[in-house]
Parts: sequence; C-alpha cells; structure tokens
Amino acid sequence: MSSIANTPASPYYAVIFTSLRTEGDDGYDAMSERMMALVADQPGFLGVESARDGVGITVSYWQDLESIKQWKAQAEHLEAQALGHQKWYSSFKTRIAKVEREYEM
Amino acid sequence: MSSIANTPASPYYAVIFTSLRTEGDDGYDAMSERMMALVADQPGFLGVESARDGVGITVSYWQDLESIKQWKAQAEHLEAQALGHQKWYSSFKTRIAKVEREYEM
Repeated sequence: MSSIANTPASPYYAVIFTSLRTEGDDGYDAMSERMMALVADQPGFLGVESARDGVGITVSYWQDLESIKQWKAQAEHLEAQALGHQKWYSSFKTRIAKVEREYEM
Repeated sequence: MSSIANTPASPYYAVIFTSLRTEGDDGYDAMSERMMALVADQPGFLGVESARDGVGITVSYWQDLESIKQWKAQAEHLEAQALGHQKWYSSFKTRIAKVEREYEM
C-alpha cells in the first residue's frame, strides 16, 4: 500500500482510521492483507493509503456515505472489526470526512 | 507523533497530506520537527497524526477552513513547502476534508 491513492476530483469521502496495536501478530497481518484485497472490490471504493510507525494510519476513500456504510457492514469485515476490538488494537479512532478539495505535485 | 489525536466532537476539518520522499535527509528531519513544534501553536489547531512507512501520511486537524488557510500561509511553513516541492518530495497529495462524525475505542 506504499502509494498515493489516485482519487477522482472532489467531492468524495475519506475514512481516517488511526490505531495503536497490541503486542504480537496474532493473525493480524493475514487479516490485514485479506481486508486490503476485499476492500478493493467494494462498490464505491476509490483507493486507500496506509502507513504504520508506532501509530497506524489507514485512509480509505469512497464515492459516498452509502458505500462506507456497506463496507462497514460487510460480513468478513464485521468479523475483522470484532477481532480488532478484542485483540489487535489497544485503541483506535475512526473519522468520516468529506473531501472538499485537493492539490498535488 | 505516535499517538491518536484527541480531537473534539465533530464537525472540524482534516488536512490529509500523503507523500513520497526523495532519497536522503537533506534537512528534512530537522524541518519536519520544526513544523511539528510550530503547528502546535497555530490558532485553530486541534491535533496531528503522522506515520511513514514507504508512503508518509500526516493528518492534521483544525477548527475551521480559516485556520487551515492561515497555517498554509505561515511564513516559515511557506519556506518548508517550497523546499518540499524542490527537494524532499517526489510526489504528494493534500486533501482538505470536513470531519462529519467519529467513533473510537
């Protein structure tokens, strides 16, 4: 995921997921890879950017709020979210934001 | 910067800055630290989250668009932006987004 997402012109939506991990892998890496593969096929998905060094930041981009809602309720993703609560994250914050403009180089 | 920003209840704004670095430090780390110190004193600044691993993601949070505009035009920050264009970044994307809701653990 080491790239800058090639999103369309705004407006569109961003889900900013910031997290702190617990110690150890415990199935996290495999699930993380699975989620990255799965999210790419979701309706309304526009791209994702992800980095971790201490804190982890994953920003996924979406066409609209309905697409975000559907992804949040996707069956395998629900399971991943439950495991995240139970064992992978010591804390996290999810922010839903509407991208209003952008500029780039 | 390895922490989750303790932002207030939405609405507020996020500046999502995603970048790819050129090779070598060339003054980048010192300027980055200086900017982190400087931004914390800006009017309307609410917090920042940052991680780099391949791609770098820095999300800063702001009370309103006017605060973001002022920070973008801050003298030392303008200099940092110019050097970023010239030598530190091979590419970047800045997105301005309005945070509409959040949830956390």
